[in-house]
Formats: sequence, C-alpha cells, structure tokens
Amino acid sequence: MTDLALVAVRGIGEIRPGDDLASILADALAPHEPADGDIVVVTSKVVSKAEGRVRPAEEREQAITDESVRLVASRAHPGGITRIVEHRTGLVLAAAGVDASNTDEGTILLLPLDSDASALAIATHLRERFGARIGVVVSDTLGRAWRNGQTDVAIGAAGIRVLEPLGGTLDAGGRPLLVTAPAVADEIAGAADLVAGKADGVPAVLVRGLGRHVGDLTEPGASRLVRRSGDDMFRLGSDEAYQAGRIAGRIEGLAEAGGRDGA
Amino acid sequence: MTDLALVAVRGIGEIRPGDDLASILADALAPHEPADGDIVVVTSKVVSKAEGRVRPAEEREQAITDESVRLVASRAHPGGITRIVEHRTGLVLAAAGVDASNTDEGTILLLPLDSDASALAIATHLRERFGARIGVVVSDTLGRAWRNGQTDVAIGAAGIRVLEPLGGTLDAGGRPLLVTAPAVADEIAGAADLVAGKADGVPAVLVRGLGRHVGDLTEPGASRLVRRSGDDMFRLGSDEAYQAGRIAGRIEGLAEAGGRDGA
Repeated sequence: MTDLALVAVRGIGEIRPGDDLASILADALAPHEPADGDIVVVTSKVVSKAEGRVRPAEEREQAITDESVRLVASRAHPGGITRIVEHRTGLVLAAAGVDASNTDEGTILLLPLDSDASALAIATHLRERFGARIGVVVSDTLGRAWRNGQTDVAIGAAGIRVLEPLGGTLDAGGRPLLVTAPAVADEIAGAADLVAGKADGVPAVLVRGLGRHVGDLTEPGASRLVRRSGDDMFRLGSDEAYQAGRIAGRIEGLAEAGGRDGA
Repeated sequence: MTDLALVAVRGIGEIRPGDDLASILADALAPHEPADGDIVVVTSKVVSKAEGRVRPAEEREQAITDESVRLVASRAHPGGITRIVEHRTGLVLAAAGVDASNTDEGTILLLPLDSDASALAIATHLRERFGARIGVVVSDTLGRAWRNGQTDVAIGAAGIRVLEPLGGTLDAGGRPLLVTAPAVADEIAGAADLVAGKADGVPAVLVRGLGRHVGDLTEPGASRLVRRSGDDMFRLGSDEAYQAGRIAGRIEGLAEAGGRDGA
C-alpha cells in the first residue's frame, strides 16, 4: 500500500576525520537489506566530518570568506552580520555553509570539498557491497528567498536523476507540460529531513519507492541543480543591487550635468 | 521499521467547480483508515477546481495582474515575458500561480482564494468523519531563486505545525541550535510530490509518521511560511533593483551638479 517509505538509519555513531564513511554507512544499512532502487540520503555534516573539513572556531569569518567566490547579500543583526554568499560550488547560502552546531567544541565545519564526488564514492561502495542499484544524496539545510524556515536540499548526488524533465511529457489532458522540471533530489533531501530531525544524531535515511529516479553512476550530480548566477534573476540582494545602480546612476547624472555645462 | 510512509490517494477522479472536495477526499481516504497523526497533502489544483477558480485562457495576462500586488522581477524569453510577482497572499511566484496545464481546454486556473481556509475546511471535515487528529497541507509547485527545477511547497495548511522552531533546543553536543527552523510543511509537500508525480492525476497523498507535527486546528497556517517582503533581502529582482537605484542615483548626480553650479 505504501508508495514511498523512509527509514532512519540508526547506529552510525559519531564520525571522526579519516573515518571510512562509506563502510560505516554500509554496516548500518545492512540490516535493512538495501535493494535495487533504494536511495540513501546522508547529511553533509557527517561527510564533512569524515573528510576532516574542520577549522578552529575563531577562524569562522575567514573560513566563510575562503569558501566564497562572491558576496550576494548581507544584513546586520544583533548577533553580527549574516553574509549570503555564492559558495565556490555555486550554491547560494548563508555563511558559506560554515557550521558550528553539532561540532566539537571550539571547531567549525566546512561543506565537503566536492559533495558530488563524495556521493559518487559512497554510491560506488554501496553498489559493490550490496550488489544493488543504489542512489546517494548528500543533503544540507538551506534558507530560501521569500519563505521562512529552511529545508534540506541536495548538494551532492550520485546514481539518481536529480531533475525530472517533464518538458516532453503530456499532462492528463494531452497537452505538453512545459517548464516544469521537479527537483527530485531536493524533494528527497527534504523528505529525509522529516525523518532525521535535527538533534537526533541520525545522519542517514534510507528512501524506498523511487527506483524510477535511480540510474547509472554517470548521471549528473546535484551541481545540475545549481543555477548559474548569470541566469539568476536574484543573483544579488535587492539592497546591494540598488546601491550598485545608485552609484552608476550618480556618475551618469554628474557626467550629464557636466556635459550641459560644457554646451 | 518504516519511520515515514506516503501513500498516493487514488480514485479521486476529475474535480469540477462546486464539487464537495472534502467529502470526495474522505471517501478516497476511507480505505486507508486515516488515524491520529496522519497528514493529507492535496494539490492546490484540485482545491482551485472545486472552488471554481477558472477563467478563460485569453484572460491569462489580466488574471496574473489581478492576482498580483507587486512585480518582483520579469524576464523576456522566446515564449513571452515571465513575470515573477508577489501574489495577493504574499507568495512570490511566477505568473501569480496562474496555471494552464491539466485544465479544461481554453481555461486557466487561479490559486485558491485562501488556501489556509481551504485546508482548514478539509481538515475539519476529515477530523469529524474519521474521529482522528488529521492535518492537511495544500501544495503548489514553485520555482526558487538560485536553484534549477521546482519543488512543491505548502501554500495552505491546517492542524499541523508548519515551522518547527528549534531555537530553544540543544544539539547533540548540548549547545543551543540557533536560527534553524525547519519548514516542515514545505518538506511534507515536497515529499508528497515525489509520490503524486505530475501527470498521473493523483491529487492527494497520505503521509504517515509525522504525528509529532500534528496539532490543533488553531495552529497557524502556511501563511506563516511566507516571509514579508520588508524582511526579505530578495524582495526585488537584481536587475529591477539596480534600475531603481540607477534612476535615484542619476537624480542625485544631477542635483549635486546643479548645487555646484549655484555655489
């Protein structure tokens, strides 16, 4: 009767730098007997921990700068200044994903170096171990424009179709369904977050029932879900864009007045 | 073993203006024996159809204008101009949610008048019918800034906690988890979309395992997930904000040059 089932993968324990995360995940998954079409969602936090993406907490601001290629928007608040940046991977997110929660005291955690590569390594291991076509999503918690609260999205993926192109399909009335392309991997990450919760220490969730989205390991990763800033109508915060325009306009106005003087 | 289970609610059939959607849903749900803590996700499309939110297709542009309170951004493309607007409900979305897919030929469909009220009416009916504490989400498919593809989010809700405030809770290391507030209702809507698909004509999904998020019918609805534009760093498209700044700057520049002349 169930079309989609999610299971929290328990018993993973604390992950340390250098841990073989793929093996640890596989051991924790084994009792669930992973099968063709299963998808495993892993939080970026444990991927980062295994990869040793740790820095001292006092280097937080520098770490954010190092992880960023561009400031998108910033806002002062009682606790300091929040920077929304374009991460070196193209993700747009607060504080470049640098995280101080659920980390060792005095340390901060950066995002994985390459979450698609991490997902691919895990998927490769799981497929070999279980002899099954398994997909992997690496999830992270992101804020959104226009909406309160955060949702988990896919920042890494392997072996799944992250975006379902419905452009060529027809709706129930026989007309083409245009433009719509569900971000399947993001919806999977969000669904897994409902199970993992935030403070339970459950870093992985098994998702069953989406075999139609599971494919070869050559499928493009979650980087396909990142819109290039040149294509983005919201590539810059409204205040930041206004100020940039104001400076350009002021120079134009001064030049125009100068031209009149000269006439 | 399953922590979260989703079931497509089949057999609902085509919804027509004036249909008693709550009763139809209840009949289709009955075989699943809805119980305390269940959540029913219904697409806004069938809510709109039942509410007769239909206009002739040739009135599409006018309908978008009528449904909008503010233009947020626009972009020309081969098929015309896409308008991202602030909807009268505060939602920021393309074409004000006016939809021409899966509708009767020659017609378009507007969003429900008040999706929270629609969700409340359905939840009230389902709770009475089944004598169980059931939550309801009305979902719609929205684009996002910075990311390709769309996800389903909650535009209406009743009887569930749409936003889980983790501000006061501690992480596994005993430190306060700040800022994080998972948009639970959005993640539920997205999860349901994985089951409903887009072209299958399955307009409702039963979600089991999230009883901790189901509450009284006095819980605030999905409007709580809408960030007020004054609080939003991305309330205006980057190009639009730049142009507004440029005009203001040009006037400043002209005035400043005029002041110098007079000095």
